[in-house]
Amino acid sequence: MDLNCDMGESFGLYRFGDDAAIMPHINQANVACGFHASDPNHMRATVGLAKQYGVRVGAHVSLPDLAGFGRREMRIEREEMRDIILYQIGALSAFLKAAAMPLAHIKPHGALYGMAARERPIAEAIADAAAVYAVPVMGLAGTLHEEIYEARGVGFLAEFFADLDYSDEGALIITREHEPITPSTAATRALEAAQDKTLTSVSGKKIPLRAETICIHSDTPGAAANAKAIAAALSDIKPGGDLKPTKAK
Amino acid sequence: MDLNCDMGESFGLYRFGDDAAIMPHINQANVACGFHASDPNHMRATVGLAKQYGVRVGAHVSLPDLAGFGRREMRIEREEMRDIILYQIGALSAFLKAAAMPLAHIKPHGALYGMAARERPIAEAIADAAAVYAVPVMGLAGTLHEEIYEARGVGFLAEFFADLDYSDEGALIITREHEPITPSTAATRALEAAQDKTLTSVSGKKIPLRAETICIHSDTPGAAANAKAIAAALSDIKPGGDLKPTKAK
Amino acid sequence: MDLNCDMGESFGLYRFGDDAAIMPHINQANVACGFHASDPNHMRATVGLAKQYGVRVGAHVSLPDLAGFGRREMRIEREEMRDIILYQIGALSAFLKAAAMPLAHIKPHGALYGMAARERPIAEAIADAAAVYAVPVMGLAGTLHEEIYEARGVGFLAEFFADLDYSDEGALIITREHEPITPSTAATRALEAAQDKTLTSVSGKKIPLRAETICIHSDTPGAAANAKAIAAALSDIKPGGDLKPTKAK
Amino acid sequence: MDLNCDMGESFGLYRFGDDAAIMPHINQANVACGFHASDPNHMRATVGLAKQYGVRVGAHVSLPDLAGFGRREMRIEREEMRDIILYQIGALSAFLKAAAMPLAHIKPHGALYGMAARERPIAEAIADAAAVYAVPVMGLAGTLHEEIYEARGVGFLAEFFADLDYSDEGALIITREHEPITPSTAATRALEAAQDKTLTSVSGKKIPLRAETICIHSDTPGAAANAKAIAAALSDIKPGGDLKPTKAK
Repeated sequence: MDLNCDMGESFGLYRFGDDAAIMPHINQANVACGFHASDPNHMRATVGLAKQYGVRVGAHVSLPDLAGFGRREMRIEREEMRDIILYQIGALSAFLKAAAMPLAHIKPHGALYGMAARERPIAEAIADAAAVYAVPVMGLAGTLHEEIYEARGVGFLAEFFADLDYSDEGALIITREHEPITPSTAATRALEAAQDKTLTSVSGKKIPLRAETICIHSDTPGAAANAKAIAAALSDIKPGGDLKPTKAK
Repeated sequence: MDLNCDMGESFGLYRFGDDAAIMPHINQANVACGFHASDPNHMRATVGLAKQYGVRVGAHVSLPDLAGFGRREMRIEREEMRDIILYQIGALSAFLKAAAMPLAHIKPHGALYGMAARERPIAEAIADAAAVYAVPVMGLAGTLHEEIYEARGVGFLAEFFADLDYSDEGALIITREHEPITPSTAATRALEAAQDKTLTSVSGKKIPLRAETICIHSDTPGAAANAKAIAAALSDIKPGGDLKPTKAK
Repeated sequence: MDLNCDMGESFGLYRFGDDAAIMPHINQANVACGFHASDPNHMRATVGLAKQYGVRVGAHVSLPDLAGFGRREMRIEREEMRDIILYQIGALSAFLKAAAMPLAHIKPHGALYGMAARERPIAEAIADAAAVYAVPVMGLAGTLHEEIYEARGVGFLAEFFADLDYSDEGALIITREHEPITPSTAATRALEAAQDKTLTSVSGKKIPLRAETICIHSDTPGAAANAKAIAAALSDIKPGGDLKPTKAK
Repeated sequence: MDLNCDMGESFGLYRFGDDAAIMPHINQANVACGFHASDPNHMRATVGLAKQYGVRVGAHVSLPDLAGFGRREMRIEREEMRDIILYQIGALSAFLKAAAMPLAHIKPHGALYGMAARERPIAEAIADAAAVYAVPVMGLAGTLHEEIYEARGVGFLAEFFADLDYSDEGALIITREHEPITPSTAATRALEAAQDKTLTSVSGKKIPLRAETICIHSDTPGAAANAKAIAAALSDIKPGGDLKPTKAK
């Protein structure tokens, strides 16, 4: 079970999330590419931080909407969306190339994530871009993410959000600002996901879960403590185990 | 002697330059990367057009200034500038990767071009980015372009602007909108550059010139006719010659 | 019957529409405010051109989407939308103030126009902003435009699009690029709207129409000739009449 | 002596400065207009907060550079600069109009502030815009701010920066991120400015000072405590005095 976090979401003088405190505990960083957050300088710095801790880097691609932090839906057609995504992956790849690191995966951000879960042309656009780089896409199991990325053969990484709530139907409840959770809750949810392969909905219902990686958000209050707690919990279930089996080369 | 043109400078619904008419006559396209012009869709389309005509593609990198078309100087320090340039090269590289084409060179645009000719940290920032991709940089001989790109070992491609005026000191006179020239003037200037290795200043003075490639701008009125005239003139001086010796692979 | 046109949609070096040729023939200019097109310089110039021809000026407000020319829907809530619209009206008002001209009306642009026709919170947001400036809103009769602007008491100006097609249900068919129509067709449609108070759908059906003003788009090929033909036709039906009854003060 | 602060510099989800804690202590708020910081929602909220505390509002106008927070110089000519400034003043005026508040002044931000102090066309452009709204401009005494705003008759408000350092020549030392100062230092500097009409340079030199208002930055650590300390100190020197003599109507 991997632990991923959306990272590098600062922009200019604006700071967002405590990346330096979180990075030591995760093994997959989804790095913002300048469309919902970040800029060239923060992208370079974030890639550098990931390299320092041997964390794999994926492109956290978004709708073009800095003012809305990529959390407002936009009607964009498949071809235009594919190009928008390719542009961002390429931009991040430049900093990976400079750091001699590979691109590990792609993860759609915010409203794009939700749209791809429900709208076929959007999920196809993401797969189109992933195919160019031959990397898998992170997403939500049981949605078009799983169906289309697998059908297209680009690979799918199912993730579980330890710091968001799920409805009784297992649907993710996306909010513009994230509510805090305790490290203990985070660890409990992570263990449940890893060992029982279930999640617990807002009303307490156990729902079967497919997850290869656990996600936390850097803007959720207490993100670093949560990351540390999850990492500790996950390493406990693998005696002699290590949260970072696949280091970035 | 190569023939290069700044291409792909449309943006959204806005059209700029008749790329379709110019592309058949050139062998190096400097493709805008979204910072002074273009967007992901136009970048993909421009790369596709270049591929169709076997034209090599370079990244036409700029200051971040769409409203000013990259023709207004901005005070940006070396590290920040390098990152801004890397971002753009990477973004274009995504479309080249999708088209299975290599990146051939980098060319700074507008105010960035002028700043790099005169300011050491700016030329160094460009070289920093070129070094990551191991490609040469197009620029103006006799300026810091030549000095720094050669000193840094990234390679330098000296260019002559067939559709701009030069002062008696051999300095380029950059304007926000370009005046028209006739195809005959364009061809005469190109031949002079290729055969005599000189240029003629605004006051008629002959000035020694180093040039590996001739540049025309797609927004100069009559750009396609000028490109055609230059291509014809250049092929005449090489019996059996071909303007496109190094096709994009 | 007034004649309005979306004007001032150039951006930086990019030109869009032949405003200078169209302005003499219209009496209401909907001026872009920098969110789907234009910038401060073009806004000032467009206001100046309107003043020269005694044309009333309205704020042509849009979703924040330069790359998409405001023609891609974005999910934005009422309060945020109202503020986005207020910002644009205020920005245009600065150039009107400098030219000693009043703000005459507001007109939503592109996707915002379509959304307001169908979605109550969006139409309310437009009315919220119009109420601050106490000006009427241009829109499509038979939609939420008419219902909400009238209910809110800000005033409604029903418009008929002479250069777009209508479905048999009287619904406007919005496209990203507009097809050309002939001046004769434009004049015929305008006369039908003004005299018969009907429009003819794509399949030839006559549909009752409420219209106080006729709209043409500056980016429709032949826009200036169409404007001239419509202005001539409209003045014919008012012997001694004048298309510009209410000059900007 | 007034106390002013640059306010409303948050952007989307990004927070910047503790406006809610600072607003009660100042009487002039320089509100960002979306070009170096802020967006329509934050502008509305900031105007609302100012109204709640009876604080006068000025337009804090900037170069168009969100990524650089308006702190990178850009070469823009006088007419274009005037239009860029007018656009921002107008945008803010919409929120003032909605709140039934007057515009009290204009203050150039960051690099624009520094450029106007030294470059005649830039200071003239600011005066051009101020003249349209008939409001005074805040700036640095002994520079072109003072000379040109007074010569043009728009009015000049000299300010002293309590949280920045001054060179021995009395020149302001502008940095991208501000160093913290203690409330006691802030109060001491304010009292010296108000009573002795001098400032103390980095090396301890006393320099004569003209100041009608004292400025603190919302992003300087401890800004709210500094504002409170300055407000208390200033009210002490006016027995029965009040820091807010001219309330916004």
